[in-house]
Amino acid sequence: MVSLTLGELANALESEYLGDETLRIERVVHPAEATSASDLALVLEKSVIPLLMEKSISTALVPEEIPASQIPIPNQIRVRRPKVALAKLLDIFEKPPSVPPGIHPSAVIDPTAVIDPEAHIGPLCSVGSNTIIGKGTRLVSHVSVGADGVIGDDCTLFPGVYVGDRVRLGNRVIIQANASIGNDGYSYVTEEVGSVETARKTGKIEAQNAKIIRINSIGTVVLEDEVEIGANACVDRATLGETRIQRGTKIDNLVQVAHNVTIGQNCLITSQVGIAGSAKIGDRVVMGGQAGLKDHITIGEDVIIAPKTGVTDDVDPRTILIGFHGVPRKEFLKQEMYIKRIKSYAQRIEALEERLAKLESGTRPVEVESPV
Amino acid sequence: MVSLTLGELANALESEYLGDETLRIERVVHPAEATSASDLALVLEKSVIPLLMEKSISTALVPEEIPASQIPIPNQIRVRRPKVALAKLLDIFEKPPSVPPGIHPSAVIDPTAVIDPEAHIGPLCSVGSNTIIGKGTRLVSHVSVGADGVIGDDCTLFPGVYVGDRVRLGNRVIIQANASIGNDGYSYVTEEVGSVETARKTGKIEAQNAKIIRINSIGTVVLEDEVEIGANACVDRATLGETRIQRGTKIDNLVQVAHNVTIGQNCLITSQVGIAGSAKIGDRVVMGGQAGLKDHITIGEDVIIAPKTGVTDDVDPRTILIGFHGVPRKEFLKQEMYIKRIKSYAQRIEALEERLAKLESGTRPVEVESPV
Amino acid sequence: MVSLTLGELANALESEYLGDETLRIERVVHPAEATSASDLALVLEKSVIPLLMEKSISTALVPEEIPASQIPIPNQIRVRRPKVALAKLLDIFEKPPSVPPGIHPSAVIDPTAVIDPEAHIGPLCSVGSNTIIGKGTRLVSHVSVGADGVIGDDCTLFPGVYVGDRVRLGNRVIIQANASIGNDGYSYVTEEVGSVETARKTGKIEAQNAKIIRINSIGTVVLEDEVEIGANACVDRATLGETRIQRGTKIDNLVQVAHNVTIGQNCLITSQVGIAGSAKIGDRVVMGGQAGLKDHITIGEDVIIAPKTGVTDDVDPRTILIGFHGVPRKEFLKQEMYIKRIKSYAQRIEALEERLAKLESGTRPVEVESPV
Repeated sequence: MVSLTLGELANALESEYLGDETLRIERVVHPAEATSASDLALVLEKSVIPLLMEKSISTALVPEEIPASQIPIPNQIRVRRPKVALAKLLDIFEKPPSVPPGIHPSAVIDPTAVIDPEAHIGPLCSVGSNTIIGKGTRLVSHVSVGADGVIGDDCTLFPGVYVGDRVRLGNRVIIQANASIGNDGYSYVTEEVGSVETARKTGKIEAQNAKIIRINSIGTVVLEDEVEIGANACVDRATLGETRIQRGTKIDNLVQVAHNVTIGQNCLITSQVGIAGSAKIGDRVVMGGQAGLKDHITIGEDVIIAPKTGVTDDVDPRTILIGFHGVPRKEFLKQEMYIKRIKSYAQRIEALEERLAKLESGTRPVEVESPV
Repeated sequence: MVSLTLGELANALESEYLGDETLRIERVVHPAEATSASDLALVLEKSVIPLLMEKSISTALVPEEIPASQIPIPNQIRVRRPKVALAKLLDIFEKPPSVPPGIHPSAVIDPTAVIDPEAHIGPLCSVGSNTIIGKGTRLVSHVSVGADGVIGDDCTLFPGVYVGDRVRLGNRVIIQANASIGNDGYSYVTEEVGSVETARKTGKIEAQNAKIIRINSIGTVVLEDEVEIGANACVDRATLGETRIQRGTKIDNLVQVAHNVTIGQNCLITSQVGIAGSAKIGDRVVMGGQAGLKDHITIGEDVIIAPKTGVTDDVDPRTILIGFHGVPRKEFLKQEMYIKRIKSYAQRIEALEERLAKLESGTRPVEVESPV
Repeated sequence: MVSLTLGELANALESEYLGDETLRIERVVHPAEATSASDLALVLEKSVIPLLMEKSISTALVPEEIPASQIPIPNQIRVRRPKVALAKLLDIFEKPPSVPPGIHPSAVIDPTAVIDPEAHIGPLCSVGSNTIIGKGTRLVSHVSVGADGVIGDDCTLFPGVYVGDRVRLGNRVIIQANASIGNDGYSYVTEEVGSVETARKTGKIEAQNAKIIRINSIGTVVLEDEVEIGANACVDRATLGETRIQRGTKIDNLVQVAHNVTIGQNCLITSQVGIAGSAKIGDRVVMGGQAGLKDHITIGEDVIIAPKTGVTDDVDPRTILIGFHGVPRKEFLKQEMYIKRIKSYAQRIEALEERLAKLESGTRPVEVESPV
C-alpha cells in the first residue's frame, strides 16, 4: 500500500497545502467514502462542499479557486486544475493489474521470440516466432501475440488481447481486454460491376453481387508510443502497407478502425466510433461516441465530431461537426431552429390564406390580427 | 435427455391440458420442426395455426385465448401468457454449456484463491490471488478472473470473459463470451484547457490538446444478483468507487458501460447501446439498440429510450424518448408530421404568391382554386 | 517467399503484359513503397501516375483503360478490373496466420472430438466433446470450440474466437479474433404485461417491469460455406431452431446478429451494424456501417441500406434505404431538399405578409419586388 505525507503529496502535485504536513495519506477517495484523516477526499466540483461538512471530513484536495475560508477542513491540498492533480494522484496510488514477473510456466512462447528478462508474461499467453517484447511490458493473461511482431517497453496488454503477425507497438502502449489488433481488412470485390457501384453512379440498383471475391490483407498495423486501445476495440491491418495510429492517441472501447486508416497524434476517439477504410484523421481530432466516418475521407487537425454524427465528406481543420448527416455546428443549429419553427410557419400560411380570401371576396378586414 | 409427461408439464406450467396425460414429451420445437407426438410444438401466435393442420401435429402448447374447438390437435397444453410458459419450458429443457465439474488441470488457479468444491472451472481458465468463487459457478473455458475479486454462487462465465481485479459479482450472474468487465475507464485530461472545453463554452475551437494525461482507474465494478451481460460487452471500472449494475438488469451484446455509471434494477439495455461516464440510470429503464447516453446525465425510472436515440439531458421518469437528438415521443411525432408537410406548405406559399400578385395587379380571380 | 515471373503472373491474372517476361516479382506494393524492379507497384487509380514517374518505377500493374503510351514504365501487367486483379494477386502473395500443423501440446481436446489429421490446432485452444473439425482448418490460438459441433474444411478461426456447443460451420469459413458465435439470445419476458408492451399499444408507459424472466436459448447457429465473420462480432443462437447465415455472406467487425435471424447469400454487412431478433434478410443485401434493423422485419433481395440507417419496417427488394428513420433514397433526398429550403419559405411568408398588409391598408405597391 502506498503511503505519503500530506507535505510530500502537495510537493508531488506542485501545490500549496494547509494543515499537518506529516499526516500520512493512505487512500484517495470520493468524499462520500472518506472514513478517516488518512483518506484524502477529492473535491472536483463545488457541489460536494456541503457533503464535506456533513461528513466532518478533515483531509481534502480542493480547487485553489475556492477560498480556504469557505472550506472548514483542517488539512487541504490546494490545486489549480483539479483533474490534472487527480491524474497525478492516481499515478501515485495506481493499482496496476497483478502479473507476476517473468514468464508464467503455462505461457507458450516460441523459442525464437525475444522476451526481455524484465517483461511479465502472465498465465496462458502465447507469443509467436521472432517476436520481440520489451522491458517492463506486461501481458496479463490469455494474450495472443503473433509472429514477427514488435512490442515495445512498458506496454500493458490485458486478458484476451489479440495482436496479429507483424504488428508493431511502440512504448507505453496500453490495450484493454479482448481488443483485436491486426485483423484482416473487410475488403471484397465483385467479379463484375456490383450493386453498390451502380447505386453510386445512378441512384439505382442495376446489378447483383453474384460472386464476392476476398481481397487478402498482407499489410500490418502500427501503434505508436502512448497509444491506448479500449476493450473489444478492433484495428484492422492494411491491405498492403500499414494501418497507423500515431503517438498519444487514445481509443475507447468497441471502436472500429478499418484497414489502411491513419490517425494522427493525440486524438480522442470515444466508444463505439466507426472509422471506415482508408480514412485519414489529423492530429488532435476528437470524436464523440457512436460517430461514424465514411471510407477514404480526410479529417483536418483539431476537428471535433459530435456523438452519433455521420461524416461523409472531408472536414476542414478546427471544424465542429454535428448531425445524422454531419454539417458544421452553426449550420446544424440553424437547421434545428428552422425545423422547430415549421409549426409557426404553418399557422402564418393559414392566416395569410384567410386574409387573402377575404380580400379576394371584396371584404376588407376591420382590424388586422396578429398572424401568430 | 429430459422427458416429462404431458400431465407433468402442464402441472409445471400451472396450466390446463387436453388429451393423453401420460404422453412423454421429449422436445420443445417450432411447429415446422415437429416430427412426432413427443415433440411439443409451440404456438406463440395465431399465424402458425394453418401450419399445425398442414403438418397434422398432434401435440402443442397453445394460448388459452384460442378456443380448443378451433385447433384440431388431440394433445394441448393451454397457457395464459405463452412467452412466460416458453420461459418455464426452456428452464426445464435447458441446454447449459458443457463444463466438467471440478477444476480442469489446464486451469491456472492462484494458491490463495478460494474455489468452492462445487464450482466448475473449465479448461484454460485463470483465477488470481485471493479471489473467491462460489458454489455451482461455471467458468466455461478461457475465462480470466483477476485478483481480490468475488464471484457468487451459480454464475456462468462463458469463454473469453475477462473479470478484472477487485470486481465483485453477485449470485446467478451470467456473462456471455468475450465480455470485458473491469476495464480502465476512458478518462483523460489536458494539461491546459483543451479543445472540447473551449467548444462547450464558446461554440468554437480555441485551444489544442497539446498533451493528453491519463487518469488511472483505481475503483472497481459491482454486478448484483441476476445481472446478465452480453457477449463482447464492456463495463469499465470506476475512477475511485464503483461502477454498479443493480439486481436483475440484463445487458445485451456489444454494449458499452463507462466508468462510474450506475444502472438500477431490472433494466433492459439492448445491443450496441453506449452509456457514457457517470451516467445514472433508474430502475426498469428500457433502452433500444444503438441508443447513446451522454456522460453525467440522469435517467428516471421506467423510462423507455427508442433505438438509435441520442440522449443529451436528464430524462424524467416514465418518459418515452426518441430521435437523433432525443425528445419525448409526442414532440418527435409532431416534428415528423410537420417535416412531412413541408412540401404542401411550399405549394400553399406558391399559390398565395400567385393570388396576391393578381390582386396587386388589380385583377380578381374568377374562381379560387384549392391551393394544395 | 513467393516469387513468380512477370509472364507467369500476367498469365495467372489472364492479362496482357509489356516488357521482360522473365523478370521475377517478389513483392506487391503501393507505388510509394516500391524500391526495385522486383516490386510490382499497384495502380488502382489514375491519381498515382505522377508518383510512378517521380519514383522511376519500372514494374507496375495498371488498368488496361490507360493507354500504355501514357505510362512510361517498361514492365506492365495490364488488367481489366484492377481490384479483381488485386484480389487474385493477394491470393498468390497471401500471408496467412502462422499456425504449426497438428495439435499443439497445450491445446485441450476432448477425447471424443474428431480432429482431421490435416487440421492445425494452435496453442491454448480447446475443443469439446464429439465435435468434428475438418481438413486444413486452422484454429490459430486461444480458440474455444464447444461440444457437439461441426467445423468444416479449410476454415480459419483467429485467436479468442468462441464457437458454442452444437454450432455448425461449413467449409472455408473465416472468423476473425474474439468473435463470439452461439451466445444465448437476448430474450426475456415479464410475468405480467410490461412497459414496452403498453407503450407499443397506447404510446404511454402504463406498466412496470416488476420481474424479468429469462428465456433460455436451446437452438444453435449455422454458418454456411465461405461465410466470414469480423473481429468481436456476435452471432446469437436461436431460441429453438437455428440462426443461419447463408453461403458467401461477409460480416464485418463488431456486428450484432441476434437470435433467430436468417441472412441470405452473398450479403455484405459492414461494421457495427445491429440486426435484432428474428429479422429475415434476403440474398445480396448490403448494409452500411452502424445501420440497425428492428426485430421480426423482412428485407428483400438486393436491398442497399445506407450507413447509420434505422430500419423499422419490411423493405421491398432492390430498394435503397436511408435516414435515421429509414426511407427510400428518393424520398430521403426530397425531404432533405425541403428542409434546406425552409429558410427561403420563411422569407417568402414574411414578404407575403408585408405585401398583404399593404393591400389590406388600401395601398398598392409601386413595384413588386422579388420575394426571395
